[in-house]
Amino acid sequence: MKRVYLDHIAATPLHPEVLEAMRLCLGDVTGNPQSLHAEGRQALDSVEAAREEVAGLVGAQSSEIYFASSGTEANNFAVKGLALGQQARGRHVVISAIEHSSVLNSVKALERQGFTATLVPVDRFGRVDPADVEKALTKETVLVSVMTANSEVGTVQPVAAVAAVCRSRGVLVHTDAVAAAGSIPLDVKALGVDAMSLAGDQFYGPKGSAALFVRKGARILPLIDGGIQEGGRRGGTENVAGIVGMGRAARLAREEMEARIAALVPLRDRLLEELPGRVGHVIVTGSRTERLPHHASFCIEFVEGEAMLLSLDMKGVAVSSGSACTSKALKASHVLLAMGLDHATAQGSLVFSLIQGTSAEDVDYLLDVFPPAIERLRGMSPLYTQYLKERGS
Amino acid sequence: MKRVYLDHIAATPLHPEVLEAMRLCLGDVTGNPQSLHAEGRQALDSVEAAREEVAGLVGAQSSEIYFASSGTEANNFAVKGLALGQQARGRHVVISAIEHSSVLNSVKALERQGFTATLVPVDRFGRVDPADVEKALTKETVLVSVMTANSEVGTVQPVAAVAAVCRSRGVLVHTDAVAAAGSIPLDVKALGVDAMSLAGDQFYGPKGSAALFVRKGARILPLIDGGIQEGGRRGGTENVAGIVGMGRAARLAREEMEARIAALVPLRDRLLEELPGRVGHVIVTGSRTERLPHHASFCIEFVEGEAMLLSLDMKGVAVSSGSACTSKALKASHVLLAMGLDHATAQGSLVFSLIQGTSAEDVDYLLDVFPPAIERLRGMSPLYTQYLKERGS
Repeated sequence: MKRVYLDHIAATPLHPEVLEAMRLCLGDVTGNPQSLHAEGRQALDSVEAAREEVAGLVGAQSSEIYFASSGTEANNFAVKGLALGQQARGRHVVISAIEHSSVLNSVKALERQGFTATLVPVDRFGRVDPADVEKALTKETVLVSVMTANSEVGTVQPVAAVAAVCRSRGVLVHTDAVAAAGSIPLDVKALGVDAMSLAGDQFYGPKGSAALFVRKGARILPLIDGGIQEGGRRGGTENVAGIVGMGRAARLAREEMEARIAALVPLRDRLLEELPGRVGHVIVTGSRTERLPHHASFCIEFVEGEAMLLSLDMKGVAVSSGSACTSKALKASHVLLAMGLDHATAQGSLVFSLIQGTSAEDVDYLLDVFPPAIERLRGMSPLYTQYLKERGS
Repeated sequence: MKRVYLDHIAATPLHPEVLEAMRLCLGDVTGNPQSLHAEGRQALDSVEAAREEVAGLVGAQSSEIYFASSGTEANNFAVKGLALGQQARGRHVVISAIEHSSVLNSVKALERQGFTATLVPVDRFGRVDPADVEKALTKETVLVSVMTANSEVGTVQPVAAVAAVCRSRGVLVHTDAVAAAGSIPLDVKALGVDAMSLAGDQFYGPKGSAALFVRKGARILPLIDGGIQEGGRRGGTENVAGIVGMGRAARLAREEMEARIAALVPLRDRLLEELPGRVGHVIVTGSRTERLPHHASFCIEFVEGEAMLLSLDMKGVAVSSGSACTSKALKASHVLLAMGLDHATAQGSLVFSLIQGTSAEDVDYLLDVFPPAIERLRGMSPLYTQYLKERGS
């Protein structure tokens, strides 16, 4: 059966060049990067070459890049490490209401240690207003964290404007760029952020590879205490092959980004335009203009996201009903609720996230199999039956 | 040139079967284990099969195994997570004086949060006395952490006896088994421990793969807050290929452990017996009887460990002068000092750690190249010149 993978936001497949780089590294590089012998030096060279590539992807210096094992770890490191690093100056943090669970739960951990937090709202497109961030700042605020783009609705945030507000008040700003880095151009200097999280498995690198940019001079406490690795800021023997894979993926993202965007935007736009007409009662979620190039998301009324997901899976299409980090929790997404959608509508969340190589035929196939799948599910929905009855009366 | 890799404690090479399992996984498994579609279920199946293998290596249930990105992360998770999880009952922890930097620095982080800690001494062989652990316990003690074996001196600790003491006092006990797991038989039930850290790169699995066993019912707070992965106790998209590699390595360790030990112990013993006679002024460090099967360690007087390491590296032999996590720090090892060695002697630390496949010819080669390398270095040592002068007078 035809298989169409449209779940970029959960994880991308490996780029063939990344796979080859990792295969060579796994076979050849025996040493620990901290060892002084030839095997160790070879491992260190591999790690440092990858650090250069990752730094280059976001306009950082390589000494400002710290490797981590997931975007979630990078977010924990940033939020906890920067807040605790500045706590002598104050114990208040500001985040948006639609941050990833790793940021939200890091803030909850800080609250258990005596910090307070303010959640800034978003509009119905999922956008944060920098003026709202400014209003949330107090004399105690030491950190603001606003994501670059949201994986559930694709909305890209005005991070540069948020950072400008923070900078004028002397407050550090972190952005969770996990869903955006490698997919859209990002430059830490142009954005003016102090820290940025990114994950290799969002741009055709391996799972288990991630990094945190921390601006030189910003004080951060380790999340993982230990040895001398990563400048003493993140202990643990380096995942050399994962890092090598992420480095290669970062280079490919720089080289291929323009072509990837050019190929995916028309397909994304076709989905956003055509899918609602195919089944009716479909709401496009997120911003139409400020949107990730590979991302089309909807709420399909009168059906539940996971039922659709399983139904499409049986038709050969892999999609997502939200963040993979929370999707089994079976509750309405905090992102969609924060955007003003009601619980019932939010249950029908569906995200189509395209990958490099997604073709017009793939989109055709999806647009063909989607309506009958939805109609079948709606036929079983008591809510839909009731709706039809009320409309008919 | 002949190349002999004797730095097991820094990292082992990949077992060819591990490499093949990872290569297949990297090429085939696209999905995120938390996704509900076929690609996600395939990834989840891979992770859960590996969890079974890792559990089997240490006699745990698979639901008691949490994957991590390094032994260091596992140690942070255990020490911080268990101590913070029990802090309502008390805020005192007990560790040995020769724990790994990840345990020592996790305890320092706890101290910054108001905990107190007691370091239990070791004897001149690097052994902890369970009676000393018992003496260190107070009414406030909530956690004891004593390593299974020390990577710098090879000494295996009486963990079962330590755990018995703790259990009788209702205190949780963690053991850092990173240097031991996969190399010697370990059973969490027989040992009676509540938590145990292990790392794949210490038994021919990949760097970036590790796990923490936590006994069912023991309360532990997450180190990495985030999504639903690892039962909500460790967020972050799983490093599927790394986990698969660790699982395969765990299975191989179970199957091959007896043969590996039988092959390495005679080679280790030859080094321990013959090397001191080849150059003189050599002290065997660690226990002669309670010792890792692949581990031979020494202090070579009148020379400095890193100079020997580089000298041997040029002769084709890769060895270590201590823990890779601290070796660039250029200070005397806290392990050797705790065992009563003086600073000057401790500077001459050298660890030969054998790997599967190390041959009698490799040991012959080492015993041949070692004496001239040491004599050359001693010839440049002012301390040795002074020693000879004093002895001559």
